[in-house]
Amino acid sequence: MVPTRNEMLNAGEKVSKFLHRTPILSSTGLNKITGCQVFFKCENFQKTGSYKSRGATNAILNLSDKQKEKGVITHSSGNFAQAIALSAKNLGIEATIVMPENAPRVKKDAVLGYGARVIVCESTLAAREAAVEKEIKKSGASFIHPSNDLMVIQGQGTAFMELNEEIENMDAVFAPIGGGGLIAGTATSVHYFSPKTEVYGAEPSGADDAWQSFHAGRIIPQTNPQTIADGLRTSLGNFNFPIIQQLVKDIILVEEEEIISAMKLIYERMKIVIEPSSAVAFAALIKEREKFKNKKVGIIISGGNIDLKALAPLL
Amino acid sequence: MVPTRNEMLNAGEKVSKFLHRTPILSSTGLNKITGCQVFFKCENFQKTGSYKSRGATNAILNLSDKQKEKGVITHSSGNFAQAIALSAKNLGIEATIVMPENAPRVKKDAVLGYGARVIVCESTLAAREAAVEKEIKKSGASFIHPSNDLMVIQGQGTAFMELNEEIENMDAVFAPIGGGGLIAGTATSVHYFSPKTEVYGAEPSGADDAWQSFHAGRIIPQTNPQTIADGLRTSLGNFNFPIIQQLVKDIILVEEEEIISAMKLIYERMKIVIEPSSAVAFAALIKEREKFKNKKVGIIISGGNIDLKALAPLL
Repeated sequence: MVPTRNEMLNAGEKVSKFLHRTPILSSTGLNKITGCQVFFKCENFQKTGSYKSRGATNAILNLSDKQKEKGVITHSSGNFAQAIALSAKNLGIEATIVMPENAPRVKKDAVLGYGARVIVCESTLAAREAAVEKEIKKSGASFIHPSNDLMVIQGQGTAFMELNEEIENMDAVFAPIGGGGLIAGTATSVHYFSPKTEVYGAEPSGADDAWQSFHAGRIIPQTNPQTIADGLRTSLGNFNFPIIQQLVKDIILVEEEEIISAMKLIYERMKIVIEPSSAVAFAALIKEREKFKNKKVGIIISGGNIDLKALAPLL
Repeated sequence: MVPTRNEMLNAGEKVSKFLHRTPILSSTGLNKITGCQVFFKCENFQKTGSYKSRGATNAILNLSDKQKEKGVITHSSGNFAQAIALSAKNLGIEATIVMPENAPRVKKDAVLGYGARVIVCESTLAAREAAVEKEIKKSGASFIHPSNDLMVIQGQGTAFMELNEEIENMDAVFAPIGGGGLIAGTATSVHYFSPKTEVYGAEPSGADDAWQSFHAGRIIPQTNPQTIADGLRTSLGNFNFPIIQQLVKDIILVEEEEIISAMKLIYERMKIVIEPSSAVAFAALIKEREKFKNKKVGIIISGGNIDLKALAPLL
C-alpha cells in the first residue's frame, strides 16, 4: 500500500517543475519557547496558498493522455478545489469542481478565477457524490479525491522531501491530520529519505477521528467535528489509514485554545499568515515540548488561506 | 551630505555579518492587480521584525572603542528601541532606551528582553530629550537618533542594496516615509548601484510632513499626525531631508482606507504579516499603477511588528 521510493522521487520531480519550492523559516524566539530547533516548511507560500497543489499536480500529471482529454473532477469547498483548478489550468486540461451551496463566495470565485467549472450541490455528502457521479457519466472526467488517493499522497509527501534536502537528520516532523493525505505522504517520504525521523500527526481534540482510528486499529469516521481548524474536519480514507498505522509514531491531540495560541505565536514571531489548521501541528509540539528538548524538529505549515473577517475575532 | 559609495559598501558588509538577508517575495495575483512586476523586500522578517536593525547595527559598529565602552542611548517607543537593544546586545555593549510612560507594555518588555535598560519619561518631546541629556551627562553614552543620523541612513540603505543584487534594473522602488531614514538610505543606494531606478516615497495624507517639506523646499515639522501607520508619525530631519530633496523622484500620499486595503491584500495574497506603515508603500503603487504598467517595481516592506489586538479591527 505504501508508495515506492521511485514513485516518491517521480512525484518530487513532477511537482518541482510546476510549483514553488517553498521557503523553510525558523525563529530564535520560537526556538526559545519550545526548547528545540524548529524548522517550518511554509506551504502557505505554495501556489494557491496550500500544500494541496502538490497532490493535485502529481495526480493530474499521472493521468494518461486519454484521461487528460476528458478532464478531471473533484468535490471540495476548500484548498483542494483551488489546487485542482490551478493545476489543471497550468497543464491545459479541464477541471470541474463540485461545491456545496453554502461554500463561501470567495472560495467559489477563486476556483472560477482559475478557469475551472463549478457545479453547486446541496451541502450533504450524498448530494456531493451524486453530482460527481452524474458528471462523470456525462463527461468521462477522472475523479481525484482530495486526500484518499495514492497519487495525491505521493504529491503531498514532496514537501517533506524538500525540507529534508535542506535540513538533514531531523529528530521529528509534525503535520496536521485532516483527510490524512499530508501525514501519509510525509510519513512515506520519511520512510525512504530520513528513516530515523519520527513522524507525529496532530489533530484537534474536537475532530479526533484519526486519533481514535489509530488507537482502535480501524477507521472510525468523523462525525460532527467541532474545531476552528476547518481543513481538519474530514475523515481518513482506506488508502492513507494503513500508511498512517504503519509509519506514524503517534498522534497528538490539542485543544482549541492551544490552536489559537500557537497560531498567534506564529503571526507575532514568524510574521507569516497561516490558517488555523496549520497551527495544529505547532500546538502539538508546544504541548509535548519536554519530550523534544534540544531536538531538531520539522513542522509542515500546511496553508495560509483564511478569510480575514474570520481571522479577526481569533486575534 | 549624501553618504559616499564606499560608506554604503562598508555598511552593507557590516550589516550582512550580523543580520538576516531577508527574502524577496512576489505574487502572481498582486502582479495582476497592479499590472506590473512587484518585488517585495521583506524586512518584516529582519531581526527584531523591522529594517531598523540595519541602521542600529551600522551606527553602533561605527563607534570608536572608547565610545562603545560607554554604551549607546536612544529615545523610541517603537521599532528602533528594539533594534538598538538587540544590536547592542549582539555587539556586547550597553544600551539605554528612553521610552514615554504611555508606551505599550509589550514594547517595553521586548526591549528589556533584549537586555537593554529602560528609562521611562513623560510623553513629551521635551521630557524625552531632557531624560536623554541627563543620562548622557552621567554615563557618556553615545546618542543614536532613530532616523536623522548618517550612519543610520547608510544602514537602512542596505535593504535596497540586497534587493538590487537579486533583482536588477528595477524601474522604480517605493519606501514609506516616517522620520526619513529608510527613504534617504534607499535613495542613496539607488544613486550608486542602480541610478536608473526612480525612487518614490509614500506617506499617509494624515501625516504628510515629508510631502509638504518636499514641495516647500524646507522642513515643515509634523504636527498632530492622524494615521494608523504609527511608524510614520515622526518628522524629517536635517540629515535626511537634503538627501530626499536631491534623490527622490516624488512623494505619493495615500488615504487611511487605501492603507488598510493594501495591507489586507498583502495578508491575503502574500501570506505575510506586516505593520500598517509597511502597507503605505504598496498603497502608493496601487494608487499610481497606471504609471507603472509593465514596469519592474521594488517595494520595501519595512516591518511586521503589530499588536494582534490592534490588528483585528482592521481586518
